[in-house]
Amino acid sequence: MYNLTKIEGGVCAAEGFYADGISAGLKAKMAKDMAFVYSDTLCEIASTFTTNKMTAAPIRHFKAKGEFQTNFVLINSKNANAMTGKAGIIDIDEILATLPKEITNPVMSSTGVIGVRLPKEKIIAGAKLFDLKKRDGDAAAAAIMTTDTFSKQIAYRIELDDGSSFHIGAMAKGAGMINPAMATMLCFITTDAKVDKDEMQNILSENVKTTFNAASVDGDTSTNDTVMLLSNAKSGAYHKEAFSEALYEIMRFLAREMVRDGEGATKLVTYEVSGAKNNKEAEIVAKALTNSLLVKTALYGEDPNWGRIASTVGASGAMADEELLSISFEDVCVYDRGELHFDEAMEKQASEIMKLDAFTIYCDLGIADGKFTAFGCDLGYEYVKINADYRT
Amino acid sequence: MYNLTKIEGGVCAAEGFYADGISAGLKAKMAKDMAFVYSDTLCEIASTFTTNKMTAAPIRHFKAKGEFQTNFVLINSKNANAMTGKAGIIDIDEILATLPKEITNPVMSSTGVIGVRLPKEKIIAGAKLFDLKKRDGDAAAAAIMTTDTFSKQIAYRIELDDGSSFHIGAMAKGAGMINPAMATMLCFITTDAKVDKDEMQNILSENVKTTFNAASVDGDTSTNDTVMLLSNAKSGAYHKEAFSEALYEIMRFLAREMVRDGEGATKLVTYEVSGAKNNKEAEIVAKALTNSLLVKTALYGEDPNWGRIASTVGASGAMADEELLSISFEDVCVYDRGELHFDEAMEKQASEIMKLDAFTIYCDLGIADGKFTAFGCDLGYEYVKINADYRT
Repeated sequence: MYNLTKIEGGVCAAEGFYADGISAGLKAKMAKDMAFVYSDTLCEIASTFTTNKMTAAPIRHFKAKGEFQTNFVLINSKNANAMTGKAGIIDIDEILATLPKEITNPVMSSTGVIGVRLPKEKIIAGAKLFDLKKRDGDAAAAAIMTTDTFSKQIAYRIELDDGSSFHIGAMAKGAGMINPAMATMLCFITTDAKVDKDEMQNILSENVKTTFNAASVDGDTSTNDTVMLLSNAKSGAYHKEAFSEALYEIMRFLAREMVRDGEGATKLVTYEVSGAKNNKEAEIVAKALTNSLLVKTALYGEDPNWGRIASTVGASGAMADEELLSISFEDVCVYDRGELHFDEAMEKQASEIMKLDAFTIYCDLGIADGKFTAFGCDLGYEYVKINADYRT
Repeated sequence: MYNLTKIEGGVCAAEGFYADGISAGLKAKMAKDMAFVYSDTLCEIASTFTTNKMTAAPIRHFKAKGEFQTNFVLINSKNANAMTGKAGIIDIDEILATLPKEITNPVMSSTGVIGVRLPKEKIIAGAKLFDLKKRDGDAAAAAIMTTDTFSKQIAYRIELDDGSSFHIGAMAKGAGMINPAMATMLCFITTDAKVDKDEMQNILSENVKTTFNAASVDGDTSTNDTVMLLSNAKSGAYHKEAFSEALYEIMRFLAREMVRDGEGATKLVTYEVSGAKNNKEAEIVAKALTNSLLVKTALYGEDPNWGRIASTVGASGAMADEELLSISFEDVCVYDRGELHFDEAMEKQASEIMKLDAFTIYCDLGIADGKFTAFGCDLGYEYVKINADYRT
């Protein structure tokens, strides 16, 4: 059939793609704060954006262009260019107008503080430092970070039966304002697969539902969320299932990494909800669990307080009944369809599981076949510290 | 017309009502943990309960009785009797069966940890300590507290033009799991007004929407939320507008007190949303603001980060446009329909306002006439501490 192999290189893993990160002085201490992704031929674009009605200028700028191909994405951190009105759009036009001639229909993407105009001169000066021949995926992934504590990238080589192969690589940033309906997350994916534009868009949109949109740090949806997939078709190779599977693996990996690196998070919790009336209700329950403050603080306290999970299921609005519900921490069933059998020994077992960096909470509603899996984290002092002090 | 006067006495302010709080050894250090409210004649009951589908046993027990009058409510803290199945119902029956003969159709109400059977023997022994002749509203209000840091009660005498008068008194507890769709809040209201049962229910239900259901500490809806209004008609007096206004004042006061005393809260913030497409959309925006973690942590940090308010408005799902939106902290307009005029001087002014214990954030969407006011608080380290350690 086909074979997926994880490889190095991030967004530069696919043929013909280049990337780098530099410091334009937006972040303190000369940290990298501007990145580019460049392809030496034009790319088709698939994308999904935030559902927030206060859509940031770069996204409005992108959408206003209609159908187009590009070979260049410029990304800055530290300033979101959101709530900046028409001026924010003009700033983008002025910045992009200064880019070198080999760049066609450039796209801009921003993340950072809302409600402050872009430091245009710094960004224009920063872009002049770009070397389009550089293939430094690490530097690019570092430059797009905000409160992320580690950079996030991944790439696959996909080998087909006929000996041909293609690549998909990606980088992402996350950390805060991460929530099930697209969040302050940026994700850039590059591929040399010879994939049809519409098919690429469909596969991307489908995968977003079960990856980035199933991930929540704090339930806040940002103004800037962007997932962008660029394809330059250079490999000449394609296989729908292989492409789809590799893309899913990449997006799922990055979504989980974003949650694992959520602001102040100490653990990654997977919520596998089953037995709901339908998949939609399972999704409602799973996302409610990722967003409940009482569940998140119990996770931080490593307290197997399953009552809060039951209460959150009940409050979610989904059809539920305490006589049908069961809840497990990994293989320890702490509540079984009305049976209160949670004793000290079980509490100890469950507490041990909660000390892990990553574990799964299973929640079966016992009603029908609906299921959904969501990714969440705990909420501790560090989240408060980061977000009470973010601007100052 | 009529005259409202605030008076002492809480739930004992109305004629014929008695209450007290005692220690049954449920809380540590002999703190009060059981309360009763007793009327020496039978009362009509109006009530609203949690929308959580994991409804606690006392609420299911109450609802199963259908139409009835009562003269006694027994309340315990420290254990919610939730997720306890049929056993939880039987426990209530067994406890209530031990009460003295002058008690008719007694009602039970519980708050505390979920998923643990009631300590039945302790509660039965505790109830034997009740003295039905006691009128100690303070003790009752203290006994129903969980993580509350102060007790909450209020009462009014309502004097009518014809020289007649009636009273309404109330106590409540709140602190955590407080959210716009009824939360772990208990509120007991007593009145000697000669009010029709159906009218009393309608006025109560109407007032809940703009008081308790407009208040949020953490967006989690509990299994036990209860608002109960008992009337024994002893005063023989009634006036619909006066009753309605006094009840609203009482419920609004208690709702705000609950938020002010929210777990770890340091400030009470009123969100006045106007200019929405309709009242429902204004409510969605106002409640989204009370529940946004990024807004709540910015409040805690006393950081006038209005971008997070704008982003939350945009993410709420309500119709909104950055060119029409304006945001003010009290009388300081920090963002005015697309105009970025937030400078250092204004930031200083807004920061000063945020240092207050209580203030209002105005959010005008500029679209139509929809409006709603919600009550929220900040989220700081103390919330995490309380909720990470609650059971242990």
